[in-house]
Amino acid sequence: KMSEANGAPKKGVLERLKEGVVVGDGGFVFALEKRGYVKAGPWTPEATVEHPEAVRQLHREFVRAGADVCQTFTFYASDDKLENRGNYANKTHTGSKINQAACDIAKEVADEGGCLVAGGISQTPTYLSGKGKEAVQAEFRKQIKIFVANDVDFLLAEYYEHVEEVEWAIEVLKETGKPVAANMCIGPEGDMHGVSAGECAVRMARAGADIVGINCHFDPFVCLEGMRKMKAALDKADLHPYLMVQPLAYMTPDASKQGFIDLPEFPFALEPRVCSRWEIQKFAREAYELGIRYIGGCCGFEPYHIRAVSEELSKERGGFMPEGSQKHDQWGLGLRLHTKPWVRARARREYWENLKPASGRPFCPSCSKPDNWGVTAGDDMLKQKTEATTEEEIKQLAAKMRDTVS
Amino acid sequence: KMSEANGAPKKGVLERLKEGVVVGDGGFVFALEKRGYVKAGPWTPEATVEHPEAVRQLHREFVRAGADVCQTFTFYASDDKLENRGNYANKTHTGSKINQAACDIAKEVADEGGCLVAGGISQTPTYLSGKGKEAVQAEFRKQIKIFVANDVDFLLAEYYEHVEEVEWAIEVLKETGKPVAANMCIGPEGDMHGVSAGECAVRMARAGADIVGINCHFDPFVCLEGMRKMKAALDKADLHPYLMVQPLAYMTPDASKQGFIDLPEFPFALEPRVCSRWEIQKFAREAYELGIRYIGGCCGFEPYHIRAVSEELSKERGGFMPEGSQKHDQWGLGLRLHTKPWVRARARREYWENLKPASGRPFCPSCSKPDNWGVTAGDDMLKQKTEATTEEEIKQLAAKMRDTVS
Amino acid sequence: KMSEANGAPKKGVLERLKEGVVVGDGGFVFALEKRGYVKAGPWTPEATVEHPEAVRQLHREFVRAGADVCQTFTFYASDDKLENRGNYANKTHTGSKINQAACDIAKEVADEGGCLVAGGISQTPTYLSGKGKEAVQAEFRKQIKIFVANDVDFLLAEYYEHVEEVEWAIEVLKETGKPVAANMCIGPEGDMHGVSAGECAVRMARAGADIVGINCHFDPFVCLEGMRKMKAALDKADLHPYLMVQPLAYMTPDASKQGFIDLPEFPFALEPRVCSRWEIQKFAREAYELGIRYIGGCCGFEPYHIRAVSEELSKERGGFMPEGSQKHDQWGLGLRLHTKPWVRARARREYWENLKPASGRPFCPSCSKPDNWGVTAGDDMLKQKTEATTEEEIKQLAAKMRDTVS
Amino acid sequence: KMSEANGAPKKGVLERLKEGVVVGDGGFVFALEKRGYVKAGPWTPEATVEHPEAVRQLHREFVRAGADVCQTFTFYASDDKLENRGNYANKTHTGSKINQAACDIAKEVADEGGCLVAGGISQTPTYLSGKGKEAVQAEFRKQIKIFVANDVDFLLAEYYEHVEEVEWAIEVLKETGKPVAANMCIGPEGDMHGVSAGECAVRMARAGADIVGINCHFDPFVCLEGMRKMKAALDKADLHPYLMVQPLAYMTPDASKQGFIDLPEFPFALEPRVCSRWEIQKFAREAYELGIRYIGGCCGFEPYHIRAVSEELSKERGGFMPEGSQKHDQWGLGLRLHTKPWVRARARREYWENLKPASGRPFCPSCSKPDNWGVTAGDDMLKQKTEATTEEEIKQLAAKMRDTVS
Ligand SMILES: [Zn+2]
Ligand SMILES: [Zn+2]
Ligand SMILES: [Zn+2]
Ligand SMILES: [Zn+2]
Repeated sequence: KMSEANGAPKKGVLERLKEGVVVGDGGFVFALEKRGYVKAGPWTPEATVEHPEAVRQLHREFVRAGADVCQTFTFYASDDKLENRGNYANKTHTGSKINQAACDIAKEVADEGGCLVAGGISQTPTYLSGKGKEAVQAEFRKQIKIFVANDVDFLLAEYYEHVEEVEWAIEVLKETGKPVAANMCIGPEGDMHGVSAGECAVRMARAGADIVGINCHFDPFVCLEGMRKMKAALDKADLHPYLMVQPLAYMTPDASKQGFIDLPEFPFALEPRVCSRWEIQKFAREAYELGIRYIGGCCGFEPYHIRAVSEELSKERGGFMPEGSQKHDQWGLGLRLHTKPWVRARARREYWENLKPASGRPFCPSCSKPDNWGVTAGDDMLKQKTEATTEEEIKQLAAKMRDTVS
Repeated sequence: KMSEANGAPKKGVLERLKEGVVVGDGGFVFALEKRGYVKAGPWTPEATVEHPEAVRQLHREFVRAGADVCQTFTFYASDDKLENRGNYANKTHTGSKINQAACDIAKEVADEGGCLVAGGISQTPTYLSGKGKEAVQAEFRKQIKIFVANDVDFLLAEYYEHVEEVEWAIEVLKETGKPVAANMCIGPEGDMHGVSAGECAVRMARAGADIVGINCHFDPFVCLEGMRKMKAALDKADLHPYLMVQPLAYMTPDASKQGFIDLPEFPFALEPRVCSRWEIQKFAREAYELGIRYIGGCCGFEPYHIRAVSEELSKERGGFMPEGSQKHDQWGLGLRLHTKPWVRARARREYWENLKPASGRPFCPSCSKPDNWGVTAGDDMLKQKTEATTEEEIKQLAAKMRDTVS
Repeated sequence: KMSEANGAPKKGVLERLKEGVVVGDGGFVFALEKRGYVKAGPWTPEATVEHPEAVRQLHREFVRAGADVCQTFTFYASDDKLENRGNYANKTHTGSKINQAACDIAKEVADEGGCLVAGGISQTPTYLSGKGKEAVQAEFRKQIKIFVANDVDFLLAEYYEHVEEVEWAIEVLKETGKPVAANMCIGPEGDMHGVSAGECAVRMARAGADIVGINCHFDPFVCLEGMRKMKAALDKADLHPYLMVQPLAYMTPDASKQGFIDLPEFPFALEPRVCSRWEIQKFAREAYELGIRYIGGCCGFEPYHIRAVSEELSKERGGFMPEGSQKHDQWGLGLRLHTKPWVRARARREYWENLKPASGRPFCPSCSKPDNWGVTAGDDMLKQKTEATTEEEIKQLAAKMRDTVS
Repeated sequence: KMSEANGAPKKGVLERLKEGVVVGDGGFVFALEKRGYVKAGPWTPEATVEHPEAVRQLHREFVRAGADVCQTFTFYASDDKLENRGNYANKTHTGSKINQAACDIAKEVADEGGCLVAGGISQTPTYLSGKGKEAVQAEFRKQIKIFVANDVDFLLAEYYEHVEEVEWAIEVLKETGKPVAANMCIGPEGDMHGVSAGECAVRMARAGADIVGINCHFDPFVCLEGMRKMKAALDKADLHPYLMVQPLAYMTPDASKQGFIDLPEFPFALEPRVCSRWEIQKFAREAYELGIRYIGGCCGFEPYHIRAVSEELSKERGGFMPEGSQKHDQWGLGLRLHTKPWVRARARREYWENLKPASGRPFCPSCSKPDNWGVTAGDDMLKQKTEATTEEEIKQLAAKMRDTVS
């Protein structure tokens, strides 16, 4: 790794990107939901206060897998989000407590492994409800204040569907003087206001982001399609931020513009779409060849997926192999130790690279048609509410779903 | 739960089975492989010594999900297995150290949650190499000695492909005086010596097992087919052990007699087959209705899968809901708190129960043809070796694979 | 071919079977439905009277494809069938007219190609309604009388779901003194009264059938599974009729005991399941290796499918290649004449033998669950009616379908 | 129909299009290949001379299905095509004989049904080999001369991959003074020289085509995507030819720019992709709503597919129902006459409209990746040859295929 565990000061993120690859960590929200610490629906990170040991262990697994970064587990931890629609986490644990605890844990594990700490903010209900720049930036500042107080190594604005909101975010983040990374959760078709992926990249770069890219909502390969467009537009505008990508570890060739959330399987039946480690290695190689130097994962990425990124780009990282690879031979070679000979015969790169894995579900299709209600920022349906959605509301929404189905 | 955290003595496993349902824990080997602590191939549990914190955290997640049992992480931890085929774990950490550490961790977490500790043994290379009853039982005794010394609550012989070997195991386990559970990793077609599933059950019961069943190798529903046969044969022979099942959390409708190991995707491309929480709920309900009272999971079962078992059978467990369900509303109701309305519309049982999840892989089939080399105990190919399989051997095996493909 | 177009008398079917392979013709009912001459639902053959030119052309195409036999197009042409449920064909054209016309056409084309004429009868509504042996045999005799009057070469009782009914049929057919072939439309699981496939074969042989086998309801490979059981039982009982198989040209791995009729796609959405010529060649080879010597097709078999049977077994037929093969090079070699090079590159056996053809329908599954109402002979629902099913009845049936869906 | 069988003169194609819908006929090449009269590879129509009865019968089936047009079976019947690459049909039967016979048969059947006769020409090897306008138009004229001599009702230039060639074709066709229809075998991505679909339409219209559209190469719905672009461009350029579409009856969502020929399954394993009658009805409705008034089919379209078009647009055709519909109740109602009740329950529009038909092939994927060699007009590989491709050439092409596979 490009850091010294003791003594010499840690290299910053921009320095590391200049010298080589930065491997990001994975998807905390989904991983912790499966472990029982995050509630699907609100997706908020009060686990940093309620079960720090679980958050810590997951950070450790990502570092063990070769991640260079510990992102603070602060996704959706803006006050407005914590209060949204009946999730009273903000009353149980204040936003500041949650964010502070996240910083503590991230720093503790980052120090163990010579990693960087990234303070992360994301899109807000306040923006979606049309409350305006000041209100939105005020939400951002609450979290940023804590990140600065904890002297995180850099800042990350991720998961934005509207370039305008991420511009506002970058503006506030830049005030800190720290390196700023900005990712939008968009695909090749651009953002929710019709701004192309390329134009979004240019605007993020012009707003001052040092690192620009895409995260979440789409599978690794669809995200790379989006990144190709971003890179082309940046090159054309003669802008040269570092490129970053942290896709889903779910295959979504059938997603429409708004990504996996519109797929009927979101969020509780995405299992068949989970990527294998070989698909992630393929993604990592293509990302690198595209010129992307910050490569990590979002929802669905488990530690072994990050390990796959590390292993694929080991040479590019000066031969570095993460600790987790002590328990993982390359390309299935670990199978040579298996009891049964027909499994030992699979201990070959050629085998796993070319395998087309069956789904095991002959009564299910391979693709779905996304739901398509086409509403976005400002629409009545999206106005922020604090009271829980009632049963009557659910019935109405179900009826609308039936009417909308093609 | 049917236990008192402080004061009154824990109810034993047989008592709990008499009164209601016992929920087992999940698949440590595969879960820890994905977290970076177990090496695929040997699949051995030296993590109990190398990274006890990771093993502990996983135990906690299963308990949090409602598991009544902490199985000691001692799968494949017989001395002969630890030495097999180039895995030198037995030299690095002795078998006894690994087993002892497993007991420590299991006990610690079990005590936190009023759970039972099960000491587990499994099939050995010694048996497969035809070394005979004495040698095989000697291997078992090494592990059992430690379990007895640690006063585990009951003993479990799991993952046996030959009923003869599990009979020998039960014999030794019975010597301890503790309750004995026995599971074979077989499906509806019976064991590897041609003994039917029903006959296997009868033999396990006659050997003295208090709890009889199936684990691993097949998906939940195929395992239940096997359990139906076991139950029918036991009823016919007027034998009444408790029934137990701990299947894979991978769908395997295309597996042949030897189970998922023969599927081309084993072990590194099983991702599409991962069960959803709804499929596990369906499984738990069918298992219960079949009369099975010990219901848990094996490879592929993550904490949220065990939580699904607990939630499905909450009524049957006196209304008990595990802690993990504080972060999980039933049947997707948690989605009523989501920002986007078309996702809130999915907050209904009817929706998730009937959804046929797409695989997201249109270029892949839904089923595979298993490899079929048809060898078993005693065959030359399976004789135990301590030296690592050479590259030349892999080439020969690959050639044999090509010739064997239909 | 084993016949002389002029001069020497045609060899009979038993003689041809003794010397080699007899290739049957294909599925008239389904082929003519697609051409616009048969109505799906009643599936009756009044086209022999209404459009003899269409029936003649199809016969010619099968002979051109190498068929040795012209089966009279008399499927479902018993009087009771022609009157069943609102199909007034029996009033418009009498049963005898339809059968006679069928004989005329078959004989005309058979004579052109030195082929045999087979007079065919099939199961009756009279049997299903429980009217008894005498009534059922009376129906058979009406058709047989015409076949005898036209001196067909042999007789075929095909498409029986109950072995009892086909025994009654064989009895009557034997009275003619002509060779008798008997096929049941059953699969490996046996007939609708629970008689095993093997037992059915034995009973057909003991009733006096010279040729015994299976037709319709299942795909080529499932039919061969059934034939394996038939052959084993016949061998065991030391009975040696010739074996015959005429399967669907639709893939039905998901069919249940009653075959493709229960599949949700029957009969108007079976298109994805149509077999390719390569699948039929594979089937023909496996059928031959199983010892079957009369190999043809039923529903779904178009002329090119029969040509595939002929081409696969050309050597076994003394090098005979049908006329249709003048327009068909073996194994795709005809592609070597194609304009585009990447298509010429597919002119290889290896290519087509190993191709796994994509369905082109990513939103559809690969398997279906059959409807399963489980009723058969005698049940009220099946009693013969002459009045058309009313709209009210359809509504009731639809409701029952909804209730029955698992 | 809009014609009088006796007496009053037949209405011309333009008049019929003005008044309503013209239903085209189906795919002769593929249908006759399956019947044994056309050789796959060269795909030439010498059957008009060798087996006119088969060609006649197919014409009759399409007319019976409601087709308003009998296209002369002259696809690929230019002299250069007949000589191409080892197909010596031009020596066996001259191009003029083949074309004349085609006219005879088409006229005979058209007169029976009051239909129109269309003389058809298609793209030539001469163009692909870069021989220039004069040589290409000379080829066209040879066929056109015969069409004019036979006084066909209108002329159709179909199956062109390069707009330049079809412009040359239209130019020659216009000389005759007869109505001219022009179709390109392109999809939404445009022609093989990079000209957009919209621009192609505009150029065809400006060249003087009265009817403009798309045929072949893509499935019904992909063709309609192409037609949407054509219509938009024509509207924008204020051009108003009639619109025409004759797609494949094979589903090709996975085809790339060059259409189904590049799919690995072309041409011998397309069976799973065959459209059902319901898919064709859906297509016909969408085509009509798009403003297309000449709706027929190309490769894969069998008579029942054309009947589906006729039935869907019966109202729009003044309530006309073709003769073939005497053997076909709407939307599966014919099933109400079926013996088994669970099949009668499917006699409903709602059922068939919403069914997602399973492929019956769980070991096959739903999509394929097209071969992609990317060569077109003028490339060495495509130069016309008269000698058959040698075995050595096939080996080289196979090797290139292996190298090219991604
Ligand atoms: Zn995400
Ligand atoms: Zn397991
Ligand atoms: Zn049939
Ligand atoms: Zn075509």
